[in-house]
Amino acid sequence: MSKRICIVGAGTAGLHLGLHLLRHGVEVTLFTERTPDEQRRSKVLSTVAHHAVTVERERALGVDHWPVEEHGYPGHQYRVGPGPEPTAFEGLLHAPSRAVDYRIYQPRLTEDFAERGGELVFGRLSPGDIPSLASRFDLIVVCTGRGPFAEMFDRDPEHSPFDRPRRALCAGLFTGIAQQPVPNVTFHICPGAGEMIEIPTWTDGGQVMALVIENHYGSDLEALAATPYEEDPKAYRDLALDLLHDHYPACFERIDPAEFGPLDGPRGIIQGAVTPVVRRTHTVLDDGTVVLALGDAHVTVDPLLGQGANMASHAAWVLAEEIVRQDVFDRRFVEHVDRRREDRVLSATRTTNMLMENLETLPEDFLGFLGELSRNRSLADEFTKWFNYPECFWDDLADPRRTRAWVARHTPDPV
Amino acid sequence: MSKRICIVGAGTAGLHLGLHLLRHGVEVTLFTERTPDEQRRSKVLSTVAHHAVTVERERALGVDHWPVEEHGYPGHQYRVGPGPEPTAFEGLLHAPSRAVDYRIYQPRLTEDFAERGGELVFGRLSPGDIPSLASRFDLIVVCTGRGPFAEMFDRDPEHSPFDRPRRALCAGLFTGIAQQPVPNVTFHICPGAGEMIEIPTWTDGGQVMALVIENHYGSDLEALAATPYEEDPKAYRDLALDLLHDHYPACFERIDPAEFGPLDGPRGIIQGAVTPVVRRTHTVLDDGTVVLALGDAHVTVDPLLGQGANMASHAAWVLAEEIVRQDVFDRRFVEHVDRRREDRVLSATRTTNMLMENLETLPEDFLGFLGELSRNRSLADEFTKWFNYPECFWDDLADPRRTRAWVARHTPDPV
Repeated sequence: MSKRICIVGAGTAGLHLGLHLLRHGVEVTLFTERTPDEQRRSKVLSTVAHHAVTVERERALGVDHWPVEEHGYPGHQYRVGPGPEPTAFEGLLHAPSRAVDYRIYQPRLTEDFAERGGELVFGRLSPGDIPSLASRFDLIVVCTGRGPFAEMFDRDPEHSPFDRPRRALCAGLFTGIAQQPVPNVTFHICPGAGEMIEIPTWTDGGQVMALVIENHYGSDLEALAATPYEEDPKAYRDLALDLLHDHYPACFERIDPAEFGPLDGPRGIIQGAVTPVVRRTHTVLDDGTVVLALGDAHVTVDPLLGQGANMASHAAWVLAEEIVRQDVFDRRFVEHVDRRREDRVLSATRTTNMLMENLETLPEDFLGFLGELSRNRSLADEFTKWFNYPECFWDDLADPRRTRAWVARHTPDPV
Repeated sequence: MSKRICIVGAGTAGLHLGLHLLRHGVEVTLFTERTPDEQRRSKVLSTVAHHAVTVERERALGVDHWPVEEHGYPGHQYRVGPGPEPTAFEGLLHAPSRAVDYRIYQPRLTEDFAERGGELVFGRLSPGDIPSLASRFDLIVVCTGRGPFAEMFDRDPEHSPFDRPRRALCAGLFTGIAQQPVPNVTFHICPGAGEMIEIPTWTDGGQVMALVIENHYGSDLEALAATPYEEDPKAYRDLALDLLHDHYPACFERIDPAEFGPLDGPRGIIQGAVTPVVRRTHTVLDDGTVVLALGDAHVTVDPLLGQGANMASHAAWVLAEEIVRQDVFDRRFVEHVDRRREDRVLSATRTTNMLMENLETLPEDFLGFLGELSRNRSLADEFTKWFNYPECFWDDLADPRRTRAWVARHTPDPV
């Protein structure tokens, strides 16, 4: 039985899906707006690390071009402060994660896809083009969360508690920030104002620091999202240095102000906001063809926990396995896919939403848990490991009783 | 962490759950209306075979008191007719199934439960008693589909397409029906009138035949459900013999009219109808205690495919494993249980509903499939095996394209 699969969007979800299908001899056509060279010259796309579970998939697909031995990082540092009781603690990943500028990563995997016999079609599609594609394909997978494509899939209100962003965002690749002795990711928490994640990231200019700056609305940090960089780069840099000095001193002290700024100027920085949303997993065209939502088209999360690309890769993997295993791409097919991807994807979403809420409102339970984390290395290590397995995050955070049981499991019995 | 589990209802679901939990040292209290002796003297409860997947669980629980080597049957016979083209064909199970009168089975397992340290409480409970139980238990499991308990759980309209029964039912244990040379279950299909399943069943009087007689509303067979046996047993027997002669001649020819009748008279026969329904999997009491629906309280199916007890046992097994694995019995706990039981339970429901519909309306696609089954032994064997794995039924029947692919997999390529 021939299987002709159409993928719209060449992000992590589309690329991992396409590459996996090619390994099983499935006919795949990948539609993408930009050629690899255009991707290389584009603005920074996102700043996300691939965790060990994703790196393992990349190895299996033969696209692990940036081995973690050289390009990876071993764990997280967590810093709460400034404030009356600033604390810092570490957690080790069970296996290294790795961050590569997507302007290197995506074009390289797109080329891998083409070299391995995948059909690449460059150009701009719109949802109106989908029905005419249906006659040529057995299944259409939409994995572009930008623009009107996502709107093909209705919002799932049960899992979409917010109708507006929770943070004003600024993210980018920054020069002039010295690496720490161990190249860890650092989560800076500035109570009442925001969070900032530092991610050592490989670019074509070597390793630089990605900053994901999550600013509470109403705090003075919000200016980092609201002040357009392009209008006055120098003023923006000065503003950023001031705010980092006040709110994230542990990062500021590693900055050389003369060198500080977005890599490649305006191409190195993005400003905006994300409304977290879970959408229906699929839609069915009039002719019966299933259009499946994957990655950002299915679920969009705030970048706080860096789950977007990792859960997209997981869902792509499950989908590829089900495409290989099954012969008919109908609602029953979708059920099998959904049953296998749902828990990880929803858990990543729920955990991200819950931590964003708690980091804003700082309830006592949560502060107590942060305190436990800071004092209990085994707990902090597992917390860090769960970035790979967000369903375990949710198992341990969905209810205060679960969190207490989690802490208790990491607390030696009194002798 | 102590776990105190309350089970309401000592059917297959409640017993398998309770026995499984006891093996893991979990504290269990089982509430049931009737003592084992009262159960032994009751009316026939249901007529259902346990398939190999269920027998395997019974072995693991140490309650396989009726080994299939002696008490089992190896497969199914399917008979379509009378009519212009009566056909008969067979399908072999991959491992034997077994049917035992529940008036032997349930009291014996109830005694096993008590002997192994389970707490048994006899008496009549009502849903109003549940909140007061909540303070004594960490989780309450309701597995009685009869009466007001099921109504604690709202109907799930997405999976409950019917608001009334599809068949007028009569079921019972009958003497005077000779066994076939091989003690198979026989599915009789009388197009336009009904279906009848013969199940060789062990009772305290030896092996007799259970008949599940599924009568289409409006056919003359409906009288078997509508005429109360107790009012005139002799007239009912004559009516039954006449109708079996006309509609199920392959059974009638093995009947000795002088011996024919329900075992134990009125205690051996039940008449009525089942509205198939899927209910919400749980409810949460005001104090936060979860009340979980299991077995008939969760899903009630028509007995056509004999899935009720088998899917109840599956769900009980999954639930027991999750109770052992998890520490907190909250909504997240329920999610894990539901994710593991849902596919089998819904697939059994959907397949039963779909086959009942098709057996009534006899669409051409379906008649073609029946024809294939009758000609293709390998297909008929797999069809028979799927009584153990209803999710495979649904994989192969959910869409006509799936059914065609199923038939094709069992059809040798032309040389």
